[in-house]
Amino acid sequence: MSNPLQLTDYIRSIPDFPKPGILFRDITPLLASPEAMRETTRQFADRFRDAGITAIAAAEARGFIFATPLAMELNAAFVPVRKPGKLPFNTESFEYDLEYGTDRLEIHTDAFKDGDRVLMIDDLLATGGTMQACIQLAEKCGAEVVGCGFVIELDGLHGRAKLAPHDVFSLIHYD
Amino acid sequence: MSNPLQLTDYIRSIPDFPKPGILFRDITPLLASPEAMRETTRQFADRFRDAGITAIAAAEARGFIFATPLAMELNAAFVPVRKPGKLPFNTESFEYDLEYGTDRLEIHTDAFKDGDRVLMIDDLLATGGTMQACIQLAEKCGAEVVGCGFVIELDGLHGRAKLAPHDVFSLIHYD
Repeated sequence: MSNPLQLTDYIRSIPDFPKPGILFRDITPLLASPEAMRETTRQFADRFRDAGITAIAAAEARGFIFATPLAMELNAAFVPVRKPGKLPFNTESFEYDLEYGTDRLEIHTDAFKDGDRVLMIDDLLATGGTMQACIQLAEKCGAEVVGCGFVIELDGLHGRAKLAPHDVFSLIHYD
Repeated sequence: MSNPLQLTDYIRSIPDFPKPGILFRDITPLLASPEAMRETTRQFADRFRDAGITAIAAAEARGFIFATPLAMELNAAFVPVRKPGKLPFNTESFEYDLEYGTDRLEIHTDAFKDGDRVLMIDDLLATGGTMQACIQLAEKCGAEVVGCGFVIELDGLHGRAKLAPHDVFSLIHYD
């Protein structure tokens, strides 16, 4: 029996980044492995294949990496969520709180069609603030958010609770 | 005989963005079509399939969208090129000139393996400044840059000349 590919083998832990005391989970080894990238896409697709997903949305920049191949696999639209001033057409925007100050994300007002069922994708679920903003943006534009998928979830930060009652699915969990 | 999918049908032209007089080529309709995204990936893959590509690099954020599925298709590593402060491991950086001021891009020093043959991907070739910076970064890290692929090339800005003698391949051309 062959050993199945373990996604955790492709995550590198880097201490004290971006500041002292933080153990950063680096996904670049995963990105460097086409086998691991295919396995990542397969695990997301298997979980959401029967959920009637018609669009996959993700915030720049790392979210784009996992959302794009999944959208192609699930035959869904890919909808980019961007920093202010990047999208050229009419936009809806949403401001949200960071640890210090605020940030803002934008989406095209015509990004979703009536009846779209949206899966939100990001690389990391930490406190959940960015994903919560993405969900609110999509809902402002009339989309139904079916679930959220993450490559990595930091369980100890309880981002999952902030995103309730939405379905949250993560491939890798750390404390 | 069926009409083949035309990628130009998935580009929206938006006048006066980001400033008056600029006709912006908006790729969001292409991103919204999984058929058009598959055709985009197929055209890049067909052109570079026999070039011995082992890694595909792209600058954030739009470059990530096209580089990721292509890397999976060509069984190559995906290497992200990022704005300063985003990559957690040791980085090499490169500063380059913009119309006003300068910008800087970073790459992990261990992003490439010895003998890597690299294809650089971006959504748009305008003046070529960003791509030139990416090429210099990859070469600083010991990689051989085999070619550059773009979804859209603005022929009138002569970015192709700036990237010579590298092989430049674009799917869509505008004046």
